[in-house]
Amino acid sequence: MDLNGARRELFEFLRIPSISAHPEHAPDVRGAARWVVGALQRAGLQAELLETAGHPVAFGEWRGAGDGAPTLLVYGHYDVQPPEPLDLWTTPPFEPDLRQGRIYARGAADNKGQLFIQLKAVHEALARTGSLPVNVLFLAEGEEEIASPNLLPLIRAHRDRFAADAVLISDSAMFAPGLPSLLFSLRGMAYFEIRVKGVTRDLHSGSYGGAVPNAASALVQILSTLHDRDNRVAIDGFYDGVDQWDTGTRDQVRALPFREQEFMIEAGATGLEGESGYSTLERLWIRPTCEVNGLLAGYTGDGAKTVLPASAMAKLSFRLVPNQDPVEVGDQLKAHISRNTPPSVDVEVVQLAGGKPWRADLQGEFFEAARTALRAGFGVDPVLTGEGASIPIVTDLEELLGARAVLMGFALPGANMHAPDEWFPDSHLEMGVETLLNFYDELSHR
Amino acid sequence: MDLNGARRELFEFLRIPSISAHPEHAPDVRGAARWVVGALQRAGLQAELLETAGHPVAFGEWRGAGDGAPTLLVYGHYDVQPPEPLDLWTTPPFEPDLRQGRIYARGAADNKGQLFIQLKAVHEALARTGSLPVNVLFLAEGEEEIASPNLLPLIRAHRDRFAADAVLISDSAMFAPGLPSLLFSLRGMAYFEIRVKGVTRDLHSGSYGGAVPNAASALVQILSTLHDRDNRVAIDGFYDGVDQWDTGTRDQVRALPFREQEFMIEAGATGLEGESGYSTLERLWIRPTCEVNGLLAGYTGDGAKTVLPASAMAKLSFRLVPNQDPVEVGDQLKAHISRNTPPSVDVEVVQLAGGKPWRADLQGEFFEAARTALRAGFGVDPVLTGEGASIPIVTDLEELLGARAVLMGFALPGANMHAPDEWFPDSHLEMGVETLLNFYDELSHR
Repeated sequence: MDLNGARRELFEFLRIPSISAHPEHAPDVRGAARWVVGALQRAGLQAELLETAGHPVAFGEWRGAGDGAPTLLVYGHYDVQPPEPLDLWTTPPFEPDLRQGRIYARGAADNKGQLFIQLKAVHEALARTGSLPVNVLFLAEGEEEIASPNLLPLIRAHRDRFAADAVLISDSAMFAPGLPSLLFSLRGMAYFEIRVKGVTRDLHSGSYGGAVPNAASALVQILSTLHDRDNRVAIDGFYDGVDQWDTGTRDQVRALPFREQEFMIEAGATGLEGESGYSTLERLWIRPTCEVNGLLAGYTGDGAKTVLPASAMAKLSFRLVPNQDPVEVGDQLKAHISRNTPPSVDVEVVQLAGGKPWRADLQGEFFEAARTALRAGFGVDPVLTGEGASIPIVTDLEELLGARAVLMGFALPGANMHAPDEWFPDSHLEMGVETLLNFYDELSHR
Repeated sequence: MDLNGARRELFEFLRIPSISAHPEHAPDVRGAARWVVGALQRAGLQAELLETAGHPVAFGEWRGAGDGAPTLLVYGHYDVQPPEPLDLWTTPPFEPDLRQGRIYARGAADNKGQLFIQLKAVHEALARTGSLPVNVLFLAEGEEEIASPNLLPLIRAHRDRFAADAVLISDSAMFAPGLPSLLFSLRGMAYFEIRVKGVTRDLHSGSYGGAVPNAASALVQILSTLHDRDNRVAIDGFYDGVDQWDTGTRDQVRALPFREQEFMIEAGATGLEGESGYSTLERLWIRPTCEVNGLLAGYTGDGAKTVLPASAMAKLSFRLVPNQDPVEVGDQLKAHISRNTPPSVDVEVVQLAGGKPWRADLQGEFFEAARTALRAGFGVDPVLTGEGASIPIVTDLEELLGARAVLMGFALPGANMHAPDEWFPDSHLEMGVETLLNFYDELSHR
């Protein structure tokens, strides 16, 4: 592979400010979609833009392996997070810069750099041999950073075109430098807004305080019932669906070169805390959580204002593990809250988002091929890692396409995805492409 | 008294938009101070503006009763609350309007209308007899609505000029129409901001949730320890200073024509709650409280953002009763919080405001004179009432001047002090002046 040429190409892609959240960047988002279509065509795939109610999907296909061969769908996204705050970037977010082996740019890791590796690998494979052992589809969306509102409707409408046996996604990070990784799980999510109403208007806390319900105090009382003393979620039935992980997986997680002290420093914490009986990585990967994401009530400006708040709001989210279900957890939460609400306030619980947890098929053929390929690409056996965050689209794609997903990330920890100075290791361009060429090769032997 | 002339005079005073909180109104605030000085001079007092670091004090004195006679200091304020939201006023806030027996204007009740009654009464008394049985001082400040930052320094600097035996204040409301009232107590206040710091920056709640401290959850946990199941404040020592009220006072409070249902409707509540074992009026007047006035943490905008908040803030205030002390309560709170803070977060407790509770000297000569005078002015015996809100200046004045205060309010419940459509009963102009003329007369017989 011509590394300098590849890097030039990637920089071209990174220069497009395809910020899906900002309407004024819609032309740039479309420009990035066109760029992907062009790259797919240069690689030797048939490619086109598929329109949606929002930003378009860049779709490519190579079906030269024939009907008898399996089909692999590569999923990625060409949109990026807003780059703000701009003053914290060392070099401008849309002027890619190579420094000390790192490519700095918004989207370098999430997801343009990694999508580019997928594009480049197919390009190389077809250039070298004119063929691939599997049919390959590319589906690059432009709305991943805004929760993919139009992707599933598109897939449902064209299910035949997207039919695949496996989904390959490179949108995550390796466990450590030099340690290639395959994801064994993603946590799901259920996100709620809790709105407490006490009195009809804010009151003077002196004239009324002590005799009328205080919505902020009621909210505090409700939220304080959500955990027990062991930092377990104290909602009836919450752990019913939780799959206990097998000893093999827990042992493997324990064997990872994880340094608690480094994690603590990286997180900016002075201490760690979580569910009793589990290690930090287990708490992050294989155990569900309940987190307060936001609180708002009454007066929050400078100084003292003696208001008795009429209403109070909390944002509350759960991370879920297989086989918890976001809808069931919502029902459990509502039942819990209605049991724990003081009589003189009203509470409304609104579910704002939800996504199912995911677990890899560790015995699957594509998973095995990925394992072997990573060993070839990086020179060491890959480790299996979990991911505490959620990518709801993974389970959705699996369910919709009847395929199993393989998540093979090439970014490194601390890549500043969604933050200033996002970066991707330059050397992983070549190692990633090597891995994927081996992956295709491996599939041809199965 | 020439009622029409008096009303015209008051309207002139009400037309001045003396909003102390708005710097652009500083000339109006000074204009109102000058207006008070003019009214004091017309009444026959020596009067002048006393400059402070902020808005001036209008000061008047009549010392014709001689060194052997007691001295009464009338305290009031000529500044007003901002009138916003303007669109909720039926007639403009600074264009006084008499409708159905009510004078509508910003400041009509709080405090210009009531200060005017005091001015007018002295004017009438001196006009009728050329004399008063006591020396009278007037102290009208222009910063009451912004927490009186410059009043106590001024008094300390000129303590001799302000020396008095009693302080008379008309800045509150009667318990009900036709039911004149004397205040037997005011609650004190201690106001805090509680700042919890967990990690150094907001984190992704998926990538870190479950393993690092969540400042918002820690704040909830801390705040949830502040009350017990009986809605009592669960802080060690909090009730130590609390004066149990005598049976007479409690009986008198129980005998007041208080309708719980009407109070609930007026407060906009669907239910009432408070400390076990006490009635609503007792909870408001003679029992201390702890109220959450504000909450702020993490993401509070529309929709879902999966942030793990680095910090969380609560505004928290206590209403205090005799003989609790705001500084002691602050120490108790800090000790309580440090005992109840999870180990991996830091908490800072900042006291933002404080004021001592106050209790009337029910056996004092001035209090007795006020009681008799109200009976003469309104034709019925006055009731003794408490006030849940705080007027910290009352205790400060008592301590600084060595005098006892008498709080005799002429406004009515629902006067919309600090709200749109503030009003004062027109008939109380005359009844108020009558009451005060009787008060002076009563003092001459003692």
